[in-house]
Formats: sequence, structure tokens, C-alpha cells
Amino acid sequence: MIPKNFILDVDGVLTTGHFLYSSKGKLYKIFGKDDADGLSLVQKKLKIQFISGDKRGFEISKKRIKDMKYDLELVSTINRVEWIKSKYDLSKTIYMGDGIFDHYVFKEVMYSISPDNGHKFAKDNANFITSASGGNGAIAEACLHILEKFFEPFDPDKKLNSYIKKTVNWNL
Amino acid sequence: MIPKNFILDVDGVLTTGHFLYSSKGKLYKIFGKDDADGLSLVQKKLKIQFISGDKRGFEISKKRIKDMKYDLELVSTINRVEWIKSKYDLSKTIYMGDGIFDHYVFKEVMYSISPDNGHKFAKDNANFITSASGGNGAIAEACLHILEKFFEPFDPDKKLNSYIKKTVNWNL
Amino acid sequence: MIPKNFILDVDGVLTTGHFLYSSKGKLYKIFGKDDADGLSLVQKKLKIQFISGDKRGFEISKKRIKDMKYDLELVSTINRVEWIKSKYDLSKTIYMGDGIFDHYVFKEVMYSISPDNGHKFAKDNANFITSASGGNGAIAEACLHILEKFFEPFDPDKKLNSYIKKTVNWNL
Amino acid sequence: MIPKNFILDVDGVLTTGHFLYSSKGKLYKIFGKDDADGLSLVQKKLKIQFISGDKRGFEISKKRIKDMKYDLELVSTINRVEWIKSKYDLSKTIYMGDGIFDHYVFKEVMYSISPDNGHKFAKDNANFITSASGGNGAIAEACLHILEKFFEPFDPDKKLNSYIKKTVNWNL
Repeated sequence: MIPKNFILDVDGVLTTGHFLYSSKGKLYKIFGKDDADGLSLVQKKLKIQFISGDKRGFEISKKRIKDMKYDLELVSTINRVEWIKSKYDLSKTIYMGDGIFDHYVFKEVMYSISPDNGHKFAKDNANFITSASGGNGAIAEACLHILEKFFEPFDPDKKLNSYIKKTVNWNL
Repeated sequence: MIPKNFILDVDGVLTTGHFLYSSKGKLYKIFGKDDADGLSLVQKKLKIQFISGDKRGFEISKKRIKDMKYDLELVSTINRVEWIKSKYDLSKTIYMGDGIFDHYVFKEVMYSISPDNGHKFAKDNANFITSASGGNGAIAEACLHILEKFFEPFDPDKKLNSYIKKTVNWNL
Repeated sequence: MIPKNFILDVDGVLTTGHFLYSSKGKLYKIFGKDDADGLSLVQKKLKIQFISGDKRGFEISKKRIKDMKYDLELVSTINRVEWIKSKYDLSKTIYMGDGIFDHYVFKEVMYSISPDNGHKFAKDNANFITSASGGNGAIAEACLHILEKFFEPFDPDKKLNSYIKKTVNWNL
Repeated sequence: MIPKNFILDVDGVLTTGHFLYSSKGKLYKIFGKDDADGLSLVQKKLKIQFISGDKRGFEISKKRIKDMKYDLELVSTINRVEWIKSKYDLSKTIYMGDGIFDHYVFKEVMYSISPDNGHKFAKDNANFITSASGGNGAIAEACLHILEKFFEPFDPDKKLNSYIKKTVNWNL
């Protein structure tokens, strides 16, 4: 079966999982290189959807994801399976998460991915674990894996313009 | 014997141990994912108390801990055992610390935990060392260990709502 | 043949590859020690040119590189080979990059270098991989390697003023 | 012979070696836990002096070091040996540095220490290499090593107040 959706958690997946706090609150998160490039290779094949349970840091996550032109929704961990089910076909969904409770989602979706910095429960239940950690290329690696597993592998020896026709804003 | 209190140091335990300084002073600390989720699993079984000797960075630590709805007190390392004794029953206290002098506290409490980034003295004297480092899930791991050691182990195959009845603000 | 130019990517090479986002956007990048010192040892032998495809973070990168007195140009990954060809002799160019698509450049230049945190495709195609990662001395290591490979090795037992005649602003 | 002075480089020794840049310039450095505590154990035995060649980040370094009540001077790498010689007896000086040119100083002093993240040249020429890296307890470890090597080892089983008589501001 061909997946239709790629749903990704934010903290620890698109970020390193760290929050920088000042006395005013949660002000910064740490994102990394390669992920925007990796997502650009799957964006025509899969609907990409980010979800996050982090209310306080939501505007930080949203700014980054909007810069990359993807969507983010606030979905608490406890309601995650229900929310996905109401919007997407679970049996055509790839889910990437790292948290202590993400394995509950892993059990319901078609295919699950944990970054290397994922919690033990996530790693124990994932179909695939990236060698990279969140904020350090884990999503880029997941995208290349998805291409290889479900579509056609990205061939680094073929010309880039055979994959991407128009100019893309790299390193968004 | 059943522990009643879980007392935690902040810098290097709830944070990575790093301070970001500008020319104006100590402005940021780095916190991480999973710890709020882990603490939510033990909060009904144990009184959770954070203590810190860091006066200059106190408001930063306090903001983060208040966001998670726990208490923080300013307690210098040198007075730590006395302070705990005056407020809590040492023989029912689990203490988690990482610093160069935290082993002095370890020797007086019921059970002691060091994160992987703990100082040699802390690790040499701890009852348990997490494989995660501070700000990278050490507290989450400590919480799961406490459940297993003193209460009932968290079973990742059981439904989450058998552990948490009402909606919780995840990823605080 | 003697190289004439040293062209370097920025994110993941001069930086750790991380972006710090607030709700306002991409505000900080993380640079490291030793790189300015290393570049000072090759700056008389090679024209040093930084290029970056990161439009949003361009002013951050530019400030750091201007502080070190080098040039930075905005060049998207997809146009990178064409851009270099239009300005420099590819056959006399050393290129250092880490990204998922940098191997396309590697194949066209005289000599290619990836930092240890480079993407698999970069590392698979590089002539040399530094043991250091970006923002942690990778460029300094690359500079010493270039001296050894194409010029005269830096001899740490010879006096520093035999390499650098005038006072340099260290640790720029 | 008994050392009289402990001279320390800042970037990569007291810090992780990282600079956070915004488009406005070098705004933050990353410091760590345990170092203030470690220095408190040797401060009565050794004159502690920090030096840095980083002009642009000088006020950041100075603020942190002033918070710990120590001195910082701006001394470029190229003039470092001369500067130390003019103020201190080299044969009674312990020097801790990590940089690409710090081995020039190592050769002239009584005893030299590199953190684990030190440049190869530093590590190749150091009398002692800490297992911790800069900004992650390297100075704390160096202080305990100095006590053991030149004075009396710190005994973690002896009471803390046998080492420190009055209340100290921990975790400065």
C-alpha cells in the first residue's frame, strides 16, 4: 500500500528537543539543517502535516514550519490518535515521533519512525529509527528512507534537476 | 519503605547544565523534552520539590518550573542536607542531583539518582544513574525508574488513560 | 596543480547547523572556536569565499563572516556549480560543504571536504572528511589539511611568528 | 615546586567554544556547571587569572568571570607568553587552554592542561587532558586534578566544611 500522509511531531523531531528559557519564559527552540531539503523531496508524494502538543512554544514551532511552507496543528499527545483518525486515513499515514507516549500513535499508523534521540518506548515500537537525532537531520534521513521504502530511491548520482524542476528556497 | 518526596536539583538535571550569557549576564538556560511528561506520571505518588543554589539564574529556573506547576526553592549546596531535613523526612526522600558536592546529600537520603552527565562524585555515590543526561530526558527516565522500583512499573502496552485520567498539558 | 580558491558553505560548516528560532523567526546561529585562526593560516595562499543558500539567516551569517573579514554570497544549492563556474576556475577550487546536495558540487571541483557532521552523500563523495564537526573546529582542521596536502604543512614546533608576521585579531 | 598561579583561557575552556550570533553580532556564549564550584576549592591556593584574545566577545566573558569574582584580561594568542612572563613567574604557572596555538604557551609554563575538546596541538602538548570538555566541567576536573597533583587531594568522603569554612555562592 502507498502512504498518503506524513505526520510529524515537532519537539525532538524537527527540533533538538531543547527549549531556551529566560526569566520571561520559553523563548527559543533549536532547529537544524537538511530537514527542509529532505522534505522538499517528498512533498509532492505525501501530504506533510506537523502536530505539536506544546502550547507555550507553539508560536515558535509555527514560525519555523510556516517558513518551510508546511502546516502545524496543536494536538495534545493524549488526543493524538483520535485527531489523526478524524482527519487522515491511519492506514495510509506515516508518523514520526520521539516522545515518551508516541508509541501509542505508532501502534495505529501504517508506518512509524523515531529519531535516534527518541524515547526508549518510541524506539522499541518504531518501524524505522533514523541514525540522526532530531534537529540534526533526522527528518531528512526519514524522507530519503520513505522514498526508498515506498517510492523510488533518491539516486545521488542522478542530476538534481531530475528531482526538482523549479528553483526551491534551500535551507529555509 | 515507600518514598514520599522527590527532590530535584535544577542545573544539569532539569537543564543541560549550560548558561547562556550575554554582556548583560546569565540570560538563558536549556531545558528539554520528556521531563514534564515523566513527572506527570509520579506527581500523585510523590511530592515533587525542585531546589537550586543558583541565585543569579533563579528567575529563569523558577519560570520553567512554575510553567510545569511545581515548586522551586533557593537552597545553597552547603545547606542542602539541613534544609531538606527541616522540611522533609530524609528517610522517605528520593534526591536527584548531578553536582560536584551532591554526593553529600546522596549519603543522607533514602535513594539517590544522578543523570549521566553527573560529576564523578555524584555518579560514584548514586543508587541509580540514568542513561540520559540532564535536559535530555534524565528526569523522565528517573520517573519511570522510580515507578518500577517503588511502585508499579509503567507498562507501555497498557492504555495511557489507565495512567492519566484527565487531559494534561503535555510538553509544558 | 595548486589550488587558488577555497569556497565554503556556511550552515553546518562554519556553524553547527543549528538555527535558534523565536516566535519572531530565525534569530541566532551557533559558530565556534579555532576556525578564524585556521583560516588566518591559509588566507594568503587561497582566496576565501563563503556561500550560503540560507536567505532568511543571511544577515546572521554575513555578520559573522564580515567580522572575520571574508566575503559571503547568497547562492542557492541548485545554482551552486554554475555560480562557482562563472566566478572561479573549478579546477583550482577547494570546496567544503556538508549538505544533502553538496556532493553535486564535490563532483565538479578540484578537491572537496566534508565536516564529520556532513550528510552521508557529502561524506561518501568527499576527498577529505574532517574528524571535527561544523562549528567545532572543522574549518580549522580543513585549513591545516590543505596546508599539508597542497602547500607546506604547518609545523607546531616552529615559532608562530614564522607563519604570521603581524598581529592578528585572534578569536574573531 | 609548588604552583602559584592558575591562568585559564576562556573560549573552549570556561565556555563550550560556541558563539551565538544574531544579525547584530556575537551576543551569547555558553558556560557550564561545576566550574565555579571547582575553582572555589583552589582559590586560596592559587591566584586565578583568566585571559582571552576575543575582543568582540570580551564583555560577555568578563560578565561571567566577574560574576564568579575572578579577573579577566584581553591578551592575544600571539602575545600570550610575553604577557604572562611580564606578570607572573612562568615556572610557577599552571596554564589551561584549548586552542590551535595554545601549545606555544604550554611549552613555557610549569604545567599545562587541555580540555577534551582541545585542538590536537593542545592535547599533544598538554601535561594533563581532562575527560570533560569546556563548558561541561573541564575546569572543575582540572581543579580537582591540581589539588591531587600539587596539594592535597579533595576527599569526597570528608565533610565539605573541612574544605570551605564560610558560605559560598554556589553555582555562580
